[in-house]
Amino acid sequence: MEQLNTFNRLSLNQITTDRLSLPEAVEACVRADIPWIALWRHKLAQTGLIEAKRLIRDSGLQVSSICRGGMFPAATAEERRQRMDDNRRAVEEAAELGADILVLVCGPAPDKDIAAARLMVEEGIAELVPYAESHGITLGIEPLHPMYAAERSVINLLSQANEIAERYRPNQVGVVVDVFHVWWDPALYEQIARAAGRIVGYHVSDWIVPTPDLLMGRGMMGDGVIDLRRIRKAVEAAGYNGPIEVEIFNKAIWELDGDESLALMKHRYLEHA
Amino acid sequence: MEQLNTFNRLSLNQITTDRLSLPEAVEACVRADIPWIALWRHKLAQTGLIEAKRLIRDSGLQVSSICRGGMFPAATAEERRQRMDDNRRAVEEAAELGADILVLVCGPAPDKDIAAARLMVEEGIAELVPYAESHGITLGIEPLHPMYAAERSVINLLSQANEIAERYRPNQVGVVVDVFHVWWDPALYEQIARAAGRIVGYHVSDWIVPTPDLLMGRGMMGDGVIDLRRIRKAVEAAGYNGPIEVEIFNKAIWELDGDESLALMKHRYLEHA
Repeated sequence: MEQLNTFNRLSLNQITTDRLSLPEAVEACVRADIPWIALWRHKLAQTGLIEAKRLIRDSGLQVSSICRGGMFPAATAEERRQRMDDNRRAVEEAAELGADILVLVCGPAPDKDIAAARLMVEEGIAELVPYAESHGITLGIEPLHPMYAAERSVINLLSQANEIAERYRPNQVGVVVDVFHVWWDPALYEQIARAAGRIVGYHVSDWIVPTPDLLMGRGMMGDGVIDLRRIRKAVEAAGYNGPIEVEIFNKAIWELDGDESLALMKHRYLEHA
Repeated sequence: MEQLNTFNRLSLNQITTDRLSLPEAVEACVRADIPWIALWRHKLAQTGLIEAKRLIRDSGLQVSSICRGGMFPAATAEERRQRMDDNRRAVEEAAELGADILVLVCGPAPDKDIAAARLMVEEGIAELVPYAESHGITLGIEPLHPMYAAERSVINLLSQANEIAERYRPNQVGVVVDVFHVWWDPALYEQIARAAGRIVGYHVSDWIVPTPDLLMGRGMMGDGVIDLRRIRKAVEAAGYNGPIEVEIFNKAIWELDGDESLALMKHRYLEHA
């Protein structure tokens, strides 16, 4: 299968260089000729939205997505209302920064009723869609690995994300395919094909063996067991040719010098993604 | 939903008291009036099969299952043949010890081709079935949590286990439902119902939050977020009324005194299972 041979689609998901501030990450991307960046809201908050907007504009970088909205389920109606307010702020920030996509990490259940939490996610998305659409933002449902079901998201399969997204127009709600979360799914290729025209993000990293940690155990592309190229080709066959975000939670990678980390990422991107 | 009110179905899966030898675990079960035990082959090997058989017979304990056969996929035909030999030994040991069930942990892929590994699992089971049947042993396919896909098993959903088991008669191949592995699955109740008449084992523990470790992070029933009673009722509605194994990998629980551990287990079993 054909290799990627340019960096046109490469996006630095900011969490991969967690030690860098937003200004530092932007500068590092510019130095490394990486054209895209995905921004995290806690980093935005540190820099301030106005300053972040200026930095992005001056740098010429494009914003592939904002991470993250979601976290819909909560124990009380009041808490769910607060979450919805925060989601509206996330939409506004995405629009301000010129991102098309707000990534949704849908949230865990507040109790043992995971089915009820899944309904709260569906209701939360239904409520957020008109506001997002009025701001030109597409919501991207990212299914998270089942090992995060109790702490981060009750949407754990691409089939769940597809089922919700299909209730909306593609410019309203799409799905985000992150190889780390979905590589093991026996229905992966069937569900990627089903998502044709609705894939709004593609994230790469690798699954390393032995896996050292639930959260911090992601690897750089090529260091693990994921058939990255096969998944990318499937995603492209489903019509997605947008940015490819490198999103890695890994202490060793976080401890690299920023420029070194980006150089390694670029090398592995061509070699393995 | 109704509580369990006797210990008739309670089985100690030996890994829950990992520090105890087989003789010690057998004695502890007898002292605690626990009628069932599930044996691990590495513990059997330490004691020796003949001595283990004598201990079990003299104790009056019943063996709910032997853990484990499986590990079918391998890089070469020669390795796969060796794995099959070992599976035949596992069947023989199960038969010697009077167990009806050999639990299958099906194994990881030897490379990045997880689909090919899944085929090797199907072929391995097909090859093992006649030998198991001739020894009166039912193979129990246990789907493992997707976080173990790279290191322990490429069978990660109850739907996969059902699909394979349905090719055989129920006395040949069944499925083992372990709440830790399947609790998050949006298709759980549908797949439990589908498995009616083919469930040959039910394992309990809990999913604790935050989850400290991929392997050693299981909790005692009641310490986590799994809706244990709802799952048990579904398994019973699907016709399973056999032993309920408590299977917990957790350093803190392993460090408890054996009698204390079993007392805690019994208490939580009635309270939460």
